[in-house]
Amino acid sequence: MLAAAMPPLLMPLLGEISAHDLEMAETLIGVARFALIFVAARVLAEVLVRLQLPTILGELLAGVLIGASGLHLLVPPETQVELSNGVISLVSGLVNVPPDAVPEIYNESFPSLEAVAELGLYALLFLTGLESELEELIAVGAQAFTVAVAGVVLPFAFGTWGLMAIFHVDAIPAIFAGASMTATSIGITASVFGELGFLKTREGQIVIGAAVLDDILGIVILAVVVALASGGNLEIGPIVKLVAAAAVFVVAAIGLSRTAAPAFDWMIDKLKAPGEVLVASFVILALSCFTATAIGLEAALGAFAAGLILSSSKHNHAIQQAVLPIVTLFATIFFVLVGAGMDLSVINPSDPSSRTALVVAGFLFVVAVIGKIAAGWAFLSKQPTRRLVVGLGMMPRGEVGLIFLGLGTSAKLLSPSLEAAILLMVIGTTFLAPVLLRLVLGGNKPDDDDSVSDDVAAEPVGLL
Amino acid sequence: MLAAAMPPLLMPLLGEISAHDLEMAETLIGVARFALIFVAARVLAEVLVRLQLPTILGELLAGVLIGASGLHLLVPPETQVELSNGVISLVSGLVNVPPDAVPEIYNESFPSLEAVAELGLYALLFLTGLESELEELIAVGAQAFTVAVAGVVLPFAFGTWGLMAIFHVDAIPAIFAGASMTATSIGITASVFGELGFLKTREGQIVIGAAVLDDILGIVILAVVVALASGGNLEIGPIVKLVAAAAVFVVAAIGLSRTAAPAFDWMIDKLKAPGEVLVASFVILALSCFTATAIGLEAALGAFAAGLILSSSKHNHAIQQAVLPIVTLFATIFFVLVGAGMDLSVINPSDPSSRTALVVAGFLFVVAVIGKIAAGWAFLSKQPTRRLVVGLGMMPRGEVGLIFLGLGTSAKLLSPSLEAAILLMVIGTTFLAPVLLRLVLGGNKPDDDDSVSDDVAAEPVGLL
Repeated sequence: MLAAAMPPLLMPLLGEISAHDLEMAETLIGVARFALIFVAARVLAEVLVRLQLPTILGELLAGVLIGASGLHLLVPPETQVELSNGVISLVSGLVNVPPDAVPEIYNESFPSLEAVAELGLYALLFLTGLESELEELIAVGAQAFTVAVAGVVLPFAFGTWGLMAIFHVDAIPAIFAGASMTATSIGITASVFGELGFLKTREGQIVIGAAVLDDILGIVILAVVVALASGGNLEIGPIVKLVAAAAVFVVAAIGLSRTAAPAFDWMIDKLKAPGEVLVASFVILALSCFTATAIGLEAALGAFAAGLILSSSKHNHAIQQAVLPIVTLFATIFFVLVGAGMDLSVINPSDPSSRTALVVAGFLFVVAVIGKIAAGWAFLSKQPTRRLVVGLGMMPRGEVGLIFLGLGTSAKLLSPSLEAAILLMVIGTTFLAPVLLRLVLGGNKPDDDDSVSDDVAAEPVGLL
Repeated sequence: MLAAAMPPLLMPLLGEISAHDLEMAETLIGVARFALIFVAARVLAEVLVRLQLPTILGELLAGVLIGASGLHLLVPPETQVELSNGVISLVSGLVNVPPDAVPEIYNESFPSLEAVAELGLYALLFLTGLESELEELIAVGAQAFTVAVAGVVLPFAFGTWGLMAIFHVDAIPAIFAGASMTATSIGITASVFGELGFLKTREGQIVIGAAVLDDILGIVILAVVVALASGGNLEIGPIVKLVAAAAVFVVAAIGLSRTAAPAFDWMIDKLKAPGEVLVASFVILALSCFTATAIGLEAALGAFAAGLILSSSKHNHAIQQAVLPIVTLFATIFFVLVGAGMDLSVINPSDPSSRTALVVAGFLFVVAVIGKIAAGWAFLSKQPTRRLVVGLGMMPRGEVGLIFLGLGTSAKLLSPSLEAAILLMVIGTTFLAPVLLRLVLGGNKPDDDDSVSDDVAAEPVGLL
């Protein structure tokens, strides 16, 4: 399925194998990898959903289980981990290729899988932007703003400072790890709040509003940090330039959602060939990613901004419906690949040399938890508010934390121990938030329902 | 968007460029290519839909226009055609890579685009299988069967014989070109019949039934021919073995649709995590492709068989809804790439050396038209039947013809002139069928409506 024409460079190395056998082997590996990813992700998601935990944890754990730290069935080439012998004998037993050629064919066809995963990532960020409900955000905006800023600044500043001052991590990976703690996963909190009937309360609205702002701030930070980090040096000029570019880009997207979305709707009404909504919105998505890349920012920011632009389209719901299957399939691949690429041997508790890595992981986790809970007290209001509920609601990092981790890993910015620490931080907060929220909210009835609207509950995030 | 980690082999060649700049260039090229494909396909689809012609022709023509025979904006590496200077200066102007590195980065990231296109192809074949309505087929089966067999045998036999006897084409490409004329495109005829209210007539039902059988026969022939052709020799043993394997595979899929579909439905009801229908059906799709590949057949047959298996699931409609966006986006890429890869200079009428190619194209076209029209007379019935309507309804080749062409091209089985001839045959029949059908049917009221059901009209094929 994911097999593609072999690049000519490969031919001399696999020269003895006929083109047809090579293609059969590639196709076989591609479809088997696809089936493996979906079966593993689904089995673990089903287990977690029965424990009332977010299914995204299942996708991650599935990746860890079948990946480089587990069964070696799904092995990203950059991990340098050897493919399981079972896979090698299966492939060479079914198609006419020698066993020692299998790992090479496996590695050569891996970029196609990563391309599909990246497509899923952009589709997910696009969907997150589409779900942002900018109008509602403006209604609760002023109140949510202080919570969001505190929830971004506290973990970012303490995390980065602690990693550099206490653990002597270099500036770039420290900033990156700090940044990975900024964004709140809307989907997980929204589904717990929805399940317990708390989405319409003041706390629920603040958390959703702050989470959207968090996403915007977090993805802007990501775009700036990756650009800087890849340059390798931290000078004040480029930082100011990139922050300004990112800010202008996001403000332009919010402005365009007022002016360009009606133009988009007008155009959609003129189009007659089927599939017009999806294709037209993917053109906007691609152009927005193009613009972000052309001005030196991450394409991920472009994908999110495209969602913001189209969030006020009257076709928003139709776009979400059409994008959801793409997210369901391909974002799953992204999350499984994040898990599969992790090297968890660096945090083996029985190995004394990995004790520092464990301590770093513990530190990040504590900062990530306390930073967001403290943000609950940044809420400026005279009305009684359960600040702990707001803080806990901001806690799960979920998909955006993983997007940071995935991009940081592929840009080779992080050491294996820092990667593992971020993964544990994401897993820990995503696991803990719903458990603690149910504990704190359980039994309590919502004490007000002066809601703005319950639309935010309509479809939290399809795949979570 | 389609950028993927660069394979290590590339690094020495593009060594002077930093990893970050390389990734930015890849992302920029990937998203620009995406936007270009969708904009071109959409513009031409909109033109054709206004001419009441199938939009798939627009996607093909869009590919020809921007591809190797046109503006050189979308250039598959295997065509060896140079990328437009405009693209090169755009990329090197926006990101920090020298102009002469751009074509190499472009080519290296092309397999990811082809992988996504291939995913679209399998999703389309899966959808075609899902829409097959085996129960209805059995109702009209006996009557449709003779039409289908005649419509497969006549163009296949005459086409292959003529190419070998008259034009001295080698056996394998001749068989391949003959096979490319076998399958009827259900979607195009169904939409014309639907539009004119003829889908419920006896002729309409026969054509739909025969087209489904044609698809099955055509894809079986494809699976066998590609396997044989790639081996390079035509011995009777492997032919018998492959035909038997393909027949057993399809019969097993039809059998499984009775027994395995209920088991699938039972499992879906047990699953609780969201997205269960889509993920579970993609697991079936991947496993079916795996099985087909493992027994030496084309994965395309596996994708179609997976659709047949799940066609009797009670979730059929939900699966189609979820697969449709994937088909809309990615099958479009497949069709545009087919058009982009064509070298139409071989049929330049002003060049005397390309006269043979034009004659071959004309021959294929005539055989493709007459073979299917003659099949209308193979219908065994005492009731009055407009046999010309049946024959014209069987004429459009559309997507399945293009799948043949795409797979034949990527397996390097066809000469450029034969590729161009098949493309013209597909375009010609797909263009002519709706025009002639409207001419013959226009004004006539359907003279009977003893229909089995109008379900077949519900959603012909989403992207056509």
